[in-house]
Amino acid sequence: MKLAVVGGGSTYTPELIDGFARLRDTLPITELVLVDPAAERLDLVGGLARRIFAKQDHDGKIVTTGDLDAGVEGADAVLLQLRVGGQAAREQDETWPLECGCIGQETTGAGGLAKALRTVPVVLDIAERVRRTNPDAWIIDFTNPVGIVTRALLRAGHKAVGLCNVAIGFQRKFAKLLDVAPSEVHLDHVGLNHLTWERAVRIGGPEGEDVLPRLLAEHGDAIAGDLRLPRPVLDRLGVVPSYYLRYFYAHDEVVRELGTKPSRAAEVAAMERELLEMYGDPALDEKPELLAKRGGAFYSEAAVDLAASLLGGGGSPYQVVNTYNNGTLPFLPDDAVIETQAAVGAHGATPLPVAPVDPLYAGLIANVTAYEDLALEAALHGGRDRVFKALLAHPLVGQYAYADGLTDRLIAHNREHLAWV
Amino acid sequence: MKLAVVGGGSTYTPELIDGFARLRDTLPITELVLVDPAAERLDLVGGLARRIFAKQDHDGKIVTTGDLDAGVEGADAVLLQLRVGGQAAREQDETWPLECGCIGQETTGAGGLAKALRTVPVVLDIAERVRRTNPDAWIIDFTNPVGIVTRALLRAGHKAVGLCNVAIGFQRKFAKLLDVAPSEVHLDHVGLNHLTWERAVRIGGPEGEDVLPRLLAEHGDAIAGDLRLPRPVLDRLGVVPSYYLRYFYAHDEVVRELGTKPSRAAEVAAMERELLEMYGDPALDEKPELLAKRGGAFYSEAAVDLAASLLGGGGSPYQVVNTYNNGTLPFLPDDAVIETQAAVGAHGATPLPVAPVDPLYAGLIANVTAYEDLALEAALHGGRDRVFKALLAHPLVGQYAYADGLTDRLIAHNREHLAWV
Amino acid sequence: MKLAVVGGGSTYTPELIDGFARLRDTLPITELVLVDPAAERLDLVGGLARRIFAKQDHDGKIVTTGDLDAGVEGADAVLLQLRVGGQAAREQDETWPLECGCIGQETTGAGGLAKALRTVPVVLDIAERVRRTNPDAWIIDFTNPVGIVTRALLRAGHKAVGLCNVAIGFQRKFAKLLDVAPSEVHLDHVGLNHLTWERAVRIGGPEGEDVLPRLLAEHGDAIAGDLRLPRPVLDRLGVVPSYYLRYFYAHDEVVRELGTKPSRAAEVAAMERELLEMYGDPALDEKPELLAKRGGAFYSEAAVDLAASLLGGGGSPYQVVNTYNNGTLPFLPDDAVIETQAAVGAHGATPLPVAPVDPLYAGLIANVTAYEDLALEAALHGGRDRVFKALLAHPLVGQYAYADGLTDRLIAHNREHLAWV
Amino acid sequence: MKLAVVGGGSTYTPELIDGFARLRDTLPITELVLVDPAAERLDLVGGLARRIFAKQDHDGKIVTTGDLDAGVEGADAVLLQLRVGGQAAREQDETWPLECGCIGQETTGAGGLAKALRTVPVVLDIAERVRRTNPDAWIIDFTNPVGIVTRALLRAGHKAVGLCNVAIGFQRKFAKLLDVAPSEVHLDHVGLNHLTWERAVRIGGPEGEDVLPRLLAEHGDAIAGDLRLPRPVLDRLGVVPSYYLRYFYAHDEVVRELGTKPSRAAEVAAMERELLEMYGDPALDEKPELLAKRGGAFYSEAAVDLAASLLGGGGSPYQVVNTYNNGTLPFLPDDAVIETQAAVGAHGATPLPVAPVDPLYAGLIANVTAYEDLALEAALHGGRDRVFKALLAHPLVGQYAYADGLTDRLIAHNREHLAWV
Repeated sequence: MKLAVVGGGSTYTPELIDGFARLRDTLPITELVLVDPAAERLDLVGGLARRIFAKQDHDGKIVTTGDLDAGVEGADAVLLQLRVGGQAAREQDETWPLECGCIGQETTGAGGLAKALRTVPVVLDIAERVRRTNPDAWIIDFTNPVGIVTRALLRAGHKAVGLCNVAIGFQRKFAKLLDVAPSEVHLDHVGLNHLTWERAVRIGGPEGEDVLPRLLAEHGDAIAGDLRLPRPVLDRLGVVPSYYLRYFYAHDEVVRELGTKPSRAAEVAAMERELLEMYGDPALDEKPELLAKRGGAFYSEAAVDLAASLLGGGGSPYQVVNTYNNGTLPFLPDDAVIETQAAVGAHGATPLPVAPVDPLYAGLIANVTAYEDLALEAALHGGRDRVFKALLAHPLVGQYAYADGLTDRLIAHNREHLAWV
Repeated sequence: MKLAVVGGGSTYTPELIDGFARLRDTLPITELVLVDPAAERLDLVGGLARRIFAKQDHDGKIVTTGDLDAGVEGADAVLLQLRVGGQAAREQDETWPLECGCIGQETTGAGGLAKALRTVPVVLDIAERVRRTNPDAWIIDFTNPVGIVTRALLRAGHKAVGLCNVAIGFQRKFAKLLDVAPSEVHLDHVGLNHLTWERAVRIGGPEGEDVLPRLLAEHGDAIAGDLRLPRPVLDRLGVVPSYYLRYFYAHDEVVRELGTKPSRAAEVAAMERELLEMYGDPALDEKPELLAKRGGAFYSEAAVDLAASLLGGGGSPYQVVNTYNNGTLPFLPDDAVIETQAAVGAHGATPLPVAPVDPLYAGLIANVTAYEDLALEAALHGGRDRVFKALLAHPLVGQYAYADGLTDRLIAHNREHLAWV
Repeated sequence: MKLAVVGGGSTYTPELIDGFARLRDTLPITELVLVDPAAERLDLVGGLARRIFAKQDHDGKIVTTGDLDAGVEGADAVLLQLRVGGQAAREQDETWPLECGCIGQETTGAGGLAKALRTVPVVLDIAERVRRTNPDAWIIDFTNPVGIVTRALLRAGHKAVGLCNVAIGFQRKFAKLLDVAPSEVHLDHVGLNHLTWERAVRIGGPEGEDVLPRLLAEHGDAIAGDLRLPRPVLDRLGVVPSYYLRYFYAHDEVVRELGTKPSRAAEVAAMERELLEMYGDPALDEKPELLAKRGGAFYSEAAVDLAASLLGGGGSPYQVVNTYNNGTLPFLPDDAVIETQAAVGAHGATPLPVAPVDPLYAGLIANVTAYEDLALEAALHGGRDRVFKALLAHPLVGQYAYADGLTDRLIAHNREHLAWV
Repeated sequence: MKLAVVGGGSTYTPELIDGFARLRDTLPITELVLVDPAAERLDLVGGLARRIFAKQDHDGKIVTTGDLDAGVEGADAVLLQLRVGGQAAREQDETWPLECGCIGQETTGAGGLAKALRTVPVVLDIAERVRRTNPDAWIIDFTNPVGIVTRALLRAGHKAVGLCNVAIGFQRKFAKLLDVAPSEVHLDHVGLNHLTWERAVRIGGPEGEDVLPRLLAEHGDAIAGDLRLPRPVLDRLGVVPSYYLRYFYAHDEVVRELGTKPSRAAEVAAMERELLEMYGDPALDEKPELLAKRGGAFYSEAAVDLAASLLGGGGSPYQVVNTYNNGTLPFLPDDAVIETQAAVGAHGATPLPVAPVDPLYAGLIANVTAYEDLALEAALHGGRDRVFKALLAHPLVGQYAYADGLTDRLIAHNREHLAWV
């Protein structure tokens, strides 16, 4: 079994490697190819990856290469985890929207649109090259914004599934609070990537008892604290929104916070410098502690689980993935991409039925889906007007003057990444 | 043919009377009952109404009464045009939301929710009394927020149609600009009450030529000026949004304007005092000029046209009304109330088919429909939490802290109108 | 020794009575007159006042009256503690400025100006009547905004001193933290009423050791917590701003908070209703616990101390009061009123010398002094333009559009209290 | 007579050269040295400068050099017109403050502080070198922020006068409106650089008739339009604020505008590219039309007039300059730098007496002077805390959270220009 990781030089990668080593029974990899154009970085990451495998007696082969076509040749699955423009572009995504009074964030709002515009053409090109060399390979997209990128991949006819670590993060956290095995916890997870709510937490499977009311009663403060929302908001909703909902429910508060401190990208960039220095230490043979602060917790578990199921192996039967709606949420188009519990196997991912969605959430889901549709149009076809329309449609923008100012800045700061400028 | 007007003591009424007189061939009224609990005001308005009929040789009888049951007895149609709490409540709707940085407006946003909460129970009670005395009578609702009120009426099983003057206003304005008869102008009017876009302006009927591009090219500045939106916004959208979309597309600009001048309600209240003084002049026998500034232009034409069709007479075959969606917009629930072109006759109103809606508009329509659903729940069942949820769902609020502050204020300022407080 | 308290029906009064009883050695009152036009309230407060004196074996006579001239006749000192328009006006002061995005507060910003406009003419009229009946009596003003009101009194030639409880509050708090007697703590308190900074905390007198650095090091978190400012702000400034500086240093944060919760006036009004009910209980013969939450802590100590010194008795030699600048702060006009340490005696209050003021504070002091000058002009002479100019000059307003919107609202909400409207 | 222009490679320079040529009778230059480290740019500008002199038969010699010491050697006066960090730094000054909701402008607010921090050390170094080679030379500072830079120069004991074109701009505009010679118009110009008001417009000299009321009555709309302030604001003030007051009087409006369009720096940078291309054309021998849009109108007239007077020649007897206050405005420290009418001659500049200043202006002047004091401290001694204090003191910032966020950004974006970082 051969896997390729595009963007394999990411500082995230040791997390993934560690997961591949620990979970070798679920996903018995024989060859792992890390593909990345950044040779120096790839060397550092690749070296540590081999030492981690060695220490854990994993006899899989680890190859590093800058050549995409060579790297994906013969791969059964290809993971996409790239960041077009790197942390520098992210830093931009997080700052210029603030100039217009809008949140700066790399997956939501104007910053997320910028990332989508930079990323979609690159990912489609990679996917096309995968398909040429390897038409049966599964593409697992972890590249943000996962919803829009997956929609682009599916619409172009690729064998793709989108993956995010938000749901698995909740599953693990709730399992710990409930003192049960994570696999026992089944979430009623509804919405779009980075716009989801956990409506029920069932024990034992899709039909198990819902313990969410108990969880909120006993651990509401801790859960609210992690989300940085006031406890009464959780109690009133009765569901657990993802961390990204804070950008909606507390938009102006977040803008104010962001405007009064340095950017997250600057923090991550400093952390990455530190991590890369650590990776270069030939004595290091495990993922360092610091990596936990980098974000992306449980990403490796999620990726292993998904790849194992798609490749016909022993992954969990139900997993939260990003795939076509196909009538699951009746108020969305069939070709919208939703994030939902799905039966996952060699056939791909088939959404499980979803109970009716409260208008409080359905209205926002529909609105953001419409934005994603326009965002994909802008990413595929370019043009100032398409960018403007996507921004005007976004519920966190919605006003023409901001949409105008953001459009100018998005283009000015991403000039080198946008073919149509 | 007998008509009853509930809220007949409104200063609007002379506009309506003037229409009934001018359009007597379309709608041959024999008896008109003005129902209003405000006796003094009703006297003034009723006196002028009789003088207008007399001057125009209309031999219909005009009755004024404070007794609702007596007034609607035997009526073929009942027009609802009331304002629970009067201009004083409107003044409140327009000011306290500003304290939370949100627009203060009596049909949209938090002010619109307040009005819905005050109004729905009163209208349902009136409708119930109409049904008891007069099960076949049509109820025509002109009372705002028309979308939510009409949804409440239809859900309770009433024979009701919702009416607004926005569409007829555009029809008349475009007809003038195009120099054709208004009846020649057919609008592709899509959305919800006070959340609509004119996507095409057809000459001659639903299949006529679309002259909107020409209209925008030749009269774009005038149209944009009326809407107080910049011309380039119109050009980029290529459609004409209703005036109320400015509360969305330029929300913060409007908030700033509202915070730096006296309220519209204060202006209208002053105007009403002046109008009532005029109405008391026994020499006045026509609607005064000043009434045009009061708003509601062409309301009488729209009302006559709708009543005539519903009562089996000679109204226009297609009219823009508020009625059940029933699949017309496939992304909305069937029982959502939309504002749309409909075939109108004695059977009621049946929406014409609507071409697919651009996500730029569909997303917002879906979001506001979800709000209206929650607003109706709050109006019917009360409770702080339902108010909070409706506000959180509204795209012009959307943030928990504002929803909280607005909920407190909505309740504090409407205590006497809310049975559940 | 006879004292009169104008506004004696205030729910504050039992605090004052309790102080008069406890501190009878410092200020041996033989007759205390509570003057208030609100007869019912005055009865309740007067009854409790007498029971407090009785319980503590104070044989001073307590008289209640609605007749100002009779009440102040023969008084050695007259305390002013009134609130023109009551809590209802305060509720207004706290809400309408929010509509313009400005803080709503009854002593600062637009709300404070409204209070000044309502209050200055009333206070000047009272003072004039005191002077007519009793030219030698001292007037102690505790009525807000104390700076502007005292300036009005002094400019009209009255024997007046302004009093606030901010400084004594800090003195007592610091004494507790330092575990010394309050009289040992001498503050380097600089600025204007409600715009002050404690620059040094000296033990033993104006020349004592400054222990502020130690206080901040050991109790910085508690002090910052009380002020609701972040600890690093205190550390960076190295001085302790008064609580009212939060309206400046965190203006937008406070506006947002105010817009997302009910008003302070509503809280106080509820508390007052509760207090008055308690006062009516003939068994109650001490100030109730709840009164502590009402604000105004240590007001009675401060008032006793000041009255004692002014009447030639045993008050503290140095007290923080509001009086003419007279060159104390060289960058302010002589006739500005500052809040400062002063030598207080039968001659009145003479400011102690003040060390040079850091531009960080001097700039703001100068700016607010200019506002107070214009505010007093507006209070004395009225007119929309004077109100506009005072608001434009206020550093918390400063922008013409807000000054305009606030001017309209100030006038609309205070119409009945402004003779010139 | 020899003049040196430091920053002579500026695209402004041809404006200056054109003035030197036209006004050779007032200021008979024999040698003009353009000093600039940017050799390529200096070549282009120097070439055009020589062609302008040649075309107008001016026989003065024009020298270009990158060597400061050589350039200022023997000069009678040295003009400073430099921009540390160039348009790129200006672009920064105009954008990152917006992230915190504050105006981005290169002379006022946080952007102006950044410029001061970059500029003061460079200017002091240049001045020191001028003094060493040429102790009698006058330094004329046109480098912004002129107030702070001039204060730095004077405090270091230099023979310096600060110059700005705002006053001469008003003088010329009013002269044109009044149809009189500019030299006939004497302004009562009061305040600080970029914080001034024209309180009177006198014809014939400091004692002439004040025609400002007439000017406002007849040309108020045009004047208000130029300033982008509403006409009623002018009427209410009765004085004419400088354009820069809009950043104060309409701060939030400007922030919103800036956030919804590209930066002024980007416009100027594009214009500069175009200008430099023109300058390279050997056929061009006059200043191009486009230069007028670059800003700085009448700068050459002002510079010639000032240099002529300082060098003992035929300049105007009274000129508006930036110099020490020395008691002119009694509410400011003597060593504050004010912008004021002064008697100018070989002795330097001596302020004329100034009538008392309305508190509406005095308060703001005092506040900004305090900021300038702290800004100079930060520029001279560096350190995060000094930057924070200056920002907290600025009336356009004033809040700790913004001061904090701005401090971080100011340092991050100016790292290479700040020796202490």
